[in-house]
Amino acid sequence: MLSKEEITEWFKSLQYSICSALEKEDGKGKFEEENWTREEGGGGRTRILQDGNVIEKGGVNFSAVHGELPEKILSGVLQTHAVNKPQTLNTEPETLNFYATGVSIVIHPHNPMVPIIHMNVRYFEMNNGTWWFGGGIDLTPHYVNEKDAAFFHNSLKGACDKHNPNYYPEFKKWADDYFFIPHRNETRGIGGIFFDRLTTHKNTSSASKQDLFAFVQEVGNAFAPIYTSLMNRNKNKSFTEANKQWQLIRRGRYVEFNLVYDKGTKFGLETNGRIESILMSLPQTANWIYNFKTQPGSPEEKTLSLLKKGINWAN
Amino acid sequence: MLSKEEITEWFKSLQYSICSALEKEDGKGKFEEENWTREEGGGGRTRILQDGNVIEKGGVNFSAVHGELPEKILSGVLQTHAVNKPQTLNTEPETLNFYATGVSIVIHPHNPMVPIIHMNVRYFEMNNGTWWFGGGIDLTPHYVNEKDAAFFHNSLKGACDKHNPNYYPEFKKWADDYFFIPHRNETRGIGGIFFDRLTTHKNTSSASKQDLFAFVQEVGNAFAPIYTSLMNRNKNKSFTEANKQWQLIRRGRYVEFNLVYDKGTKFGLETNGRIESILMSLPQTANWIYNFKTQPGSPEEKTLSLLKKGINWAN
Repeated sequence: MLSKEEITEWFKSLQYSICSALEKEDGKGKFEEENWTREEGGGGRTRILQDGNVIEKGGVNFSAVHGELPEKILSGVLQTHAVNKPQTLNTEPETLNFYATGVSIVIHPHNPMVPIIHMNVRYFEMNNGTWWFGGGIDLTPHYVNEKDAAFFHNSLKGACDKHNPNYYPEFKKWADDYFFIPHRNETRGIGGIFFDRLTTHKNTSSASKQDLFAFVQEVGNAFAPIYTSLMNRNKNKSFTEANKQWQLIRRGRYVEFNLVYDKGTKFGLETNGRIESILMSLPQTANWIYNFKTQPGSPEEKTLSLLKKGINWAN
Repeated sequence: MLSKEEITEWFKSLQYSICSALEKEDGKGKFEEENWTREEGGGGRTRILQDGNVIEKGGVNFSAVHGELPEKILSGVLQTHAVNKPQTLNTEPETLNFYATGVSIVIHPHNPMVPIIHMNVRYFEMNNGTWWFGGGIDLTPHYVNEKDAAFFHNSLKGACDKHNPNYYPEFKKWADDYFFIPHRNETRGIGGIFFDRLTTHKNTSSASKQDLFAFVQEVGNAFAPIYTSLMNRNKNKSFTEANKQWQLIRRGRYVEFNLVYDKGTKFGLETNGRIESILMSLPQTANWIYNFKTQPGSPEEKTLSLLKKGINWAN
């Protein structure tokens, strides 16, 4: 049986391989590393690149935390608990202990023509035998470029299809629903894939734990080629002051999503995670201009019109 | 009996008198007005000043919204419902309808030596006879200045003491607890006063509705003289690039508090309020620098050391 140690080790190696690919494409920035421990158990290795050639601020974080499950998040976890519980388990432990490990990435580029990207792959288990994988990748272009959007979604579809033809359509819809800002009635970007609580006892898959881990590895390994290609295609494009202003406004929306809705951020805050590691997802600078209106026919207006659910980006 | 219409009218007039005092002290900026309606009932009048001499972005908002109480916030409201319910009420209405009106203010100045300020005064009632007042003022200096802090707290204490000697100590503590950022383990600023669910049936006061309204008016009227004085004392102070950088970081914390913890913001988002009016509290620009450290002995370090609960600022 696949152990949490094996999964953890693989996440650690993924962090390094991604950092190395990003540094190479950036050409200047270097990731700085900080190891941290969590009082209640576990810790992580935060790697941040600031002020590179292409990347303004980016974080590629590994963490593996464990301990007693905090009251606040217990009820949320228990909702699907009964469904996931293996049949062999007869008695409930007195205290629920959890182990959560994963890699989280957010990259904010300098150039507004380069999109923001996010990826997370994670594994969670409890001492009652429950376990699951989760994760996702989503792209937040400041300006939607249909070619890039098709490339991005086709790459994800390709990775998914190797494992299960239902994964891409299901997880693409899940991303549309998850990376959504209700109070703005707009998606965060052009979505991607999102999945949670993948285990052998539910979902469309009857895959083994090993199969599911292989899928999560596929997603993790897809990140670097996808994003370095998007960096490469766009990093030398010219832009105006107005483009930069729009980027700062879109970053404001990113902050709104992460602080108000993002479950990973909430989990981090509620499990007393290292705050600078959790909030590495926030951009170096963001703007809020009261009542900003896009001009009719502008690229900003076009982008806004494409920030909605259900667009079929893949070919 | 004091009606919701009388209270509403007074809040409307307060909005104008405060805007007029702020414009006068600013010397350049003018408030722009936007009237909005809420689909489910009511609306508001948002007044925003951007790019003044002293004020970079400031909002003085009036709103009066009503309708069915959304499921999401119903449970929170009902927690103290039993306590507040008048004895004369025997039957519970089938649907709980609410009416909420108030004035909300946040001012972000250009100069980092001028503090950010927030005020809110509000009235809430339901069709089951329950009603209460709430509100507060708190100050968020980018650099704590003890003289200003004493002036600010003494002014609030003076306003409170006219009504009840217990108000200031009680509401000052409440502000320390409310305007607190747990994930940073720091207060948002130097606090002020905060109070909620003030009604004739609970709290330290046996005051009438008229008495409580008079107190809320006292607080509302205290705002303009306090903040115009703080603008005046500090607006011509010189500052460095490093001071400006620190201001942007402190504004980042302000954004974190408002999006993660602020109950007014949550109420607005959950009652489908006008989003640009709710998020007027966010600064024009904010920064997040990974792992920013203050220098030992610096004014930034001193400020951080004073962002804690329980400091006795009033004389």
